[in-house]
Parts: sequence; structure tokens; C-alpha cells
Amino acid sequence: MKAYKERSREELLALKAKLEKEYEDAKGKGLKLDMSRGKPSVAQLDMGMDIFDVLNSQSDMTSLEGVDVRNYGVLDGLTEAKHMMADIMGVKAENVIIYGNASLNVMYDAVSSAVTHGVMGCTPWCKLDKVKFLCPVPGYDRHFSITQYFGIEMITVPMTPQGPDMDLVEKLVSEDESVKGIWCVPKYSNPQGYTYSDETVRRFANLKPAARDFRIFWDNAYAVHHLYEEKERQESILDILSECEKAGNPDMVYEFASTSKISFSGAGVAAIASSRANLECIRKTLTIQTIGYDKINQLRHVRYFKDFEGIKAHMRKHAALMRPKFEAVLRVLEEELAGTGIGEWTRPNGGYFISFQAMEGCAKAIVARCKEAGVTLTAAGATYPYGHDPEDSNIRIAPTYPSPEELAMATDLFVLCVKLVSVEKLLEEHARDASRFGDRLAG
Amino acid sequence: MKAYKERSREELLALKAKLEKEYEDAKGKGLKLDMSRGKPSVAQLDMGMDIFDVLNSQSDMTSLEGVDVRNYGVLDGLTEAKHMMADIMGVKAENVIIYGNASLNVMYDAVSSAVTHGVMGCTPWCKLDKVKFLCPVPGYDRHFSITQYFGIEMITVPMTPQGPDMDLVEKLVSEDESVKGIWCVPKYSNPQGYTYSDETVRRFANLKPAARDFRIFWDNAYAVHHLYEEKERQESILDILSECEKAGNPDMVYEFASTSKISFSGAGVAAIASSRANLECIRKTLTIQTIGYDKINQLRHVRYFKDFEGIKAHMRKHAALMRPKFEAVLRVLEEELAGTGIGEWTRPNGGYFISFQAMEGCAKAIVARCKEAGVTLTAAGATYPYGHDPEDSNIRIAPTYPSPEELAMATDLFVLCVKLVSVEKLLEEHARDASRFGDRLAG
Repeated sequence: MKAYKERSREELLALKAKLEKEYEDAKGKGLKLDMSRGKPSVAQLDMGMDIFDVLNSQSDMTSLEGVDVRNYGVLDGLTEAKHMMADIMGVKAENVIIYGNASLNVMYDAVSSAVTHGVMGCTPWCKLDKVKFLCPVPGYDRHFSITQYFGIEMITVPMTPQGPDMDLVEKLVSEDESVKGIWCVPKYSNPQGYTYSDETVRRFANLKPAARDFRIFWDNAYAVHHLYEEKERQESILDILSECEKAGNPDMVYEFASTSKISFSGAGVAAIASSRANLECIRKTLTIQTIGYDKINQLRHVRYFKDFEGIKAHMRKHAALMRPKFEAVLRVLEEELAGTGIGEWTRPNGGYFISFQAMEGCAKAIVARCKEAGVTLTAAGATYPYGHDPEDSNIRIAPTYPSPEELAMATDLFVLCVKLVSVEKLLEEHARDASRFGDRLAG
Repeated sequence: MKAYKERSREELLALKAKLEKEYEDAKGKGLKLDMSRGKPSVAQLDMGMDIFDVLNSQSDMTSLEGVDVRNYGVLDGLTEAKHMMADIMGVKAENVIIYGNASLNVMYDAVSSAVTHGVMGCTPWCKLDKVKFLCPVPGYDRHFSITQYFGIEMITVPMTPQGPDMDLVEKLVSEDESVKGIWCVPKYSNPQGYTYSDETVRRFANLKPAARDFRIFWDNAYAVHHLYEEKERQESILDILSECEKAGNPDMVYEFASTSKISFSGAGVAAIASSRANLECIRKTLTIQTIGYDKINQLRHVRYFKDFEGIKAHMRKHAALMRPKFEAVLRVLEEELAGTGIGEWTRPNGGYFISFQAMEGCAKAIVARCKEAGVTLTAAGATYPYGHDPEDSNIRIAPTYPSPEELAMATDLFVLCVKLVSVEKLLEEHARDASRFGDRLAG
């Protein structure tokens, strides 16, 4: 396909007319589709319904250690739940505390208690003039919302397929004591689906932060969320906790995970993994905050999945449902946009998203065009702190929720909008060039 | 029975010898009983097991408004869950937000967000030199822990059978702008089982706080937790939300409740009720903190209890199991301590506790004696801020968890320890008096 930039004004005008016609037709279809959030599909949720059969009688209600899970007690989670979440994160169970239904709340609490009480004896962040977080971009909007809410200044760091730009991370973390954290999705990152290389993880573990209370917020949200069964397409990361220990930085990481996209979204089990010293500090808050989280749901999960093999088998079923959707989107992108020079995209082996990079200045217009024709995408800019993508080019595609038929329609519309907005953009540039040329003639 | 204070030194010495013998015998029994926390018994928990049968198939998983409760979404709770919790609290569903598994966490969040972000546009408490809370005493230790954790100064206010000393509350709240809140358990209070009178509730609603961000933390933990079926023994409180609205103070209350002691402790549904303006402010935090709490558990509760009649019927079953335990404890206290002048206690119609008032300076010693012989009580002092009961006399008795047989043994030991410690105390006083008398002779 001929790159759009190489086409003449006349070619672009002809194309624009054709695309506008197609767009009007598409609008007429009255679509109402949602590719905005990383939600499991109904088929994925149906798959896990047997979980409600595992706890039925009184005799089912006792934990490994003889605790009646229906009553108060057990502040930091059932031992068997710690093992389950430890297996998912690839850490030791002794480094795990179990929380409530979702990891977002755990991350919020980690930031909130650092703000009010400080990290392991350091000054509470609310007493400091300036607190900064590094934010690899594009990234996860809900991370950025937490730091924005607490008035923490966010500094963007570019992502690469191997992880964040570590030269920049090292420089900022070691030079600036007000840098207290960094948001990371180390495996099948949101939105690109990138996995941090071993070198990246080791460089993280060997950071020399200026701030004693600097913490890596390691959101291992997609730890077991492979799309493919082939070993060579199953990506893996080093265990950051043990790498930090080796590097003499044992307390530098808070790792988060949940079963939200394993069992049920919003009704799963969440956890934090960290060093013994960090966990001790966290328990001091926890004991004020709660008598304990929902142990019935913890035990239900453990009994249902049985062990890590059970989790992996369940994830293969998720993958079987999700893979065709990712491939359908990628196929349309490839067929319609390869060689046009108006978009680039990632081809993830796991996670919940595809990251699309439009021509500079086009993302908002593409999302608006899609919306107008009935397809909701994640708001343009959402993948950047303060909702501000300086190049206005990143769009997050979430292919998991719609049915395959809906997805085909939605992706067709998406590529149509990408083309239309790109052509309009290029025609504007032509007009600007012509006007500059005219100015020169006149001058 | 002859009051202990009127007995001679010789009578007390003889009694002491007898009690010490009994105490040694009791220690020999190797008891291991717990009357420390307000935990439901196993029989109470067994009663609710059918709740796990109500959600089994895909078709059960849709809320009133067509939401699949297994997926993300619905920030502030299912409409039907709001109705359930509104019925329990006696408020309107539009005034309710549903949270996670327990109300303690909701109270913690309410204080925490006031500390970091302020209440409805007021200065965040972390920016103020001094923040104070009023604490009716004796009261609930976990309330006091939250305010202590955030460095909030606690000022005690005496409780009466009609509620807190409102003259003092009115004075402190109207005169001191640093008074930002008061902890209340308005119905079947922890630990006394007192219920605030209508006059008390109206005086609360008509407070004229110096601080615009003063809030009443109204922990309606025992809203439907009657011990008796007779109407005249079922206590009720006025709806503080509507009383505040009438009084022109619509935003002055955060009300909390949960099903922890209705369904399962730590696996229930919690809620806050407040004015529209407060809820709007709360939602701004909530939307950063979570995508939504466990909707499956919300729906499970609604489907199981069906309506408020279902809740009330279930609570009657709880009462049938709890009532004999309260009565057994009260019977022993009556038989063994009436007329001795060494203890007073409450006779609650609901809730989870009996409050025992020992002679001044005896509570810690009684609790220690009980512990030494194998019966754990709530730590003496726990019912006061900072764990400090200035008279060292209040002991909270939690009769719900032990079996009736265990309870009989535990209460027998308790009264034995009360007698023994009181006799020792009185003998000390005799010795002091004699020494003073000797001093006078010598002088």
C-alpha cells in the first residue's frame, strides 16, 4: 500500500471523499460497541461459575490452620491464599499479605498511608513540599489518577519494548530526593503488552535512590495472562523481590496482584508482596483499618483453583477465548493499515490491550470519530498523566469484551476513522505548505 | 448479701482465704475460654449457610438494573444492596453508598480522606495544627484506634443510659473549632447496650458546631440486633439523617452499618449513609480508590434475605441463640454480686456486650486474674481512648461466642475474680486506714 504521506493532494482528496462516504454509511448502522476498558467477556465469566459450588457446608468453612473463615480474625489473609497469590506473582508466601476484592484499592492504600504516615519511619509525604512519581508512558490511567489525587507530581518516562527508559529512570531516581515512586506494569504492560527484560528488572533492583522511602510500585496485573500456549510466546519476568534482595535493596518494592482477571472482576482476591520490613510497616496500618478481609472468598478461590496448575489451566481457557479477538483486531490493522504510514501498533503475547500509535495530533479526533459512529474507545490521552498525551497519538484498544462479530465491526470502524482523520490531517498540512509557498511568492 | 465495704477486716480475711482456695481450684481446671470480642458463635454462623445456594447459575448473576455482577463497574453499589442497607439503617436508599466487607474500613476511609483531602472543600486535617474528636466513654476500642492512628486528640465524654452527656457535647462542639468529630454507637451501644433517647438524637441534630467540617460518626452497628421479640424490649432510635435535615444541618452525619453480625463477620456488606452533598464528596475519593466493591457478595446478600422482613426473621434466629447467653451471664452476676457493692452492670436489650463496672482500681487486676486462670476478657482500659480508663473500673463482657457451658464456667470464674480482687482492694484500704490511724497515734 502506498504511504499516505507520499500521496498527492488530489489523491488524498479523492480518498477523503470515499472514506467520508464509508463513514456516513457506518454511522447509519447505529453501532453501540465498547472497546474502552479491559473487561473480561461474558463467556470468560461463565467459565468460572463452578467456583460457587466449592463452599457449601459447614465442614467446608475451615482453613488449613483450623480457622472458621465465616468469623472475625486473620488480619493478613489465609495461609493458603498467600500461597495462591505467591505462586501467581512468583514470590514466597511469607512475603504476601492478602487484601480485599481488587488490587487498585491496595495501591491506593499504599500511597495513602505513605502520605499520612510515611514509609518505614520516613517523613509522611503530606509533610513534604514536593513528592514526585515517575510514570512510564503510555501507561495505566488509574495509576496516574491515584498520584494526581494526592497532589504528587508525575514525571513521564518513555516506554520501550524492554521496559521504561532505564537511563532516565536511574538518573531521576538517584538525583532527586523528592522522587518517591514509579508506577510499573512489568509484564504484558498496559497498554502495550510489553514485558520488562531481565536487564531492565536488574537495573530496577540496582537503583540507588536518593530517597530512602523510594518505592517501585510493581503492578503485576497480568502475571499469568498469556495469550499463547507455545512456550516461546509465554513471556516471563525476573522476580523483582529477590533481585532487590540480591542487590542490597530488599525494601524497595511493593508488588501488587489480584485474581480480577482470573476469577471475577471486582469479586476476586488481591494481594501485596514485599519485604518483611515493609510488610511489618503495612500491618501497622492494616490492624487499624480492618479486622480482616473476606476470608470466605479467599478460601473459595483456593478450593476452586486447588493449586498453581489449576490457575494455569484456567488461564489457558481464558486465552482460548481472548486470542481470536486479539488476532481479529491485529489482522484488520495489518490488512488495512500496513504500509500506510499512518499508524503503528503492538502485537502482544498477553495482557488485555493493544497500543495504537496514530500520526501526531490525530488520537483525539480518531476517538471522537469512533464515538460519533457508536464505538467507544478509551479516551485519548488517558494513557498519560493528567490525561495529556503531548503528541496526541496514543490510543488503547481493549479487544476482550465485545463478541467476535462486534469486534470485527468495531475494528473496521476504527481503521476507517484512522484513515479519515489521517487524510484530513495530511490535507491540512498540504494547505499549510501551499499557504507558506504563497507567502513566499508574495514576499 | 452484706456489702463488702461493710465487712470487718476479719470477715474479709476469711473470705479472701476461701476465695483464694476456689481460685486455685479453678486454675487447676485448665480453662481456655474467650469472652474478649463480639464474635458470633458457630451456631449463629451455621444458621446462614443457605446464602451460598442463592447464586449458582449465569442467569442469577444479573442485577435489577441489568448489570452482570461478575464484571467491573457500578462504583457505589447495586441499587438493591442500597435498599437493603437503607432498610437496616432506617434511611433512604438514595443516601447510601455500598462498600466492601466491613464498616470499620469505611470509617477508616472517612477519617483518612478527611485527613488528606478535607471534608467538602474544607482544609485537609493534615494541614491543621490540632484536630480533636469527642469520645463517649466507655466506647469501642477500634474507633479510638483510628483517631489515635491519625494523631487526632481524643476528649472523653461520659455516657449515660440516654446517650452521651449532651450538655458537654454541645459545649465542646460549639466552642472549639478544632473539634471535628464524635464517635457514636447510638443503638445498643458498645459496650453498655444503651440506646440514645429521642431527645439525645434531636440534640445531636441541632448541634451548632464551630467547625464547618464537624461530622458525627454514627456507627449504627446494632441497628437490627435486638435480643428480645417483645415490642417493649425492642429499642429504636430516630433517623439522625432526617433529624439533621429538619434542623438545617443536613451534612453533619456519616452513618455506618454492615451485615457483619447479620450474615458473616468479615464477609458481609458494609455501607455509609449521608447527605447528597457528602456522598458526592465521598464519590470523588471512591472513584480513585476502586473500580467497585464485590457486587457478587452484594447480590448474594440481597437474594438471600429478599427484603427487610427476611432480615428481621434472620435476626430473630440470632437472638434466640444469643439471648440465653446474655441471660446466663446476667443471672450469675445477679446471684453472686447483687448487694455486694463491688460491681455494677448493664442489662442490654440488644447488641453484643454487657458493660461491667468494678470498684475503682480493680479492672486490670480482675482481667489479669481471669487470664491467669484461662479466661480471656477484653483488655481493661480498651473501652477508653489510649487504652486508659482513669478509674480502672470498666470491663467489657462479650458473651456471644462461647457455648452456654463454657459461658457458665467463664462467668463463674469472672465473679470469683471480681470478688477476690475487690476483697484484696478493701483489705489494702483497711491496712491504709490502720496505718493512718497508727500515724495519728504516733503523731
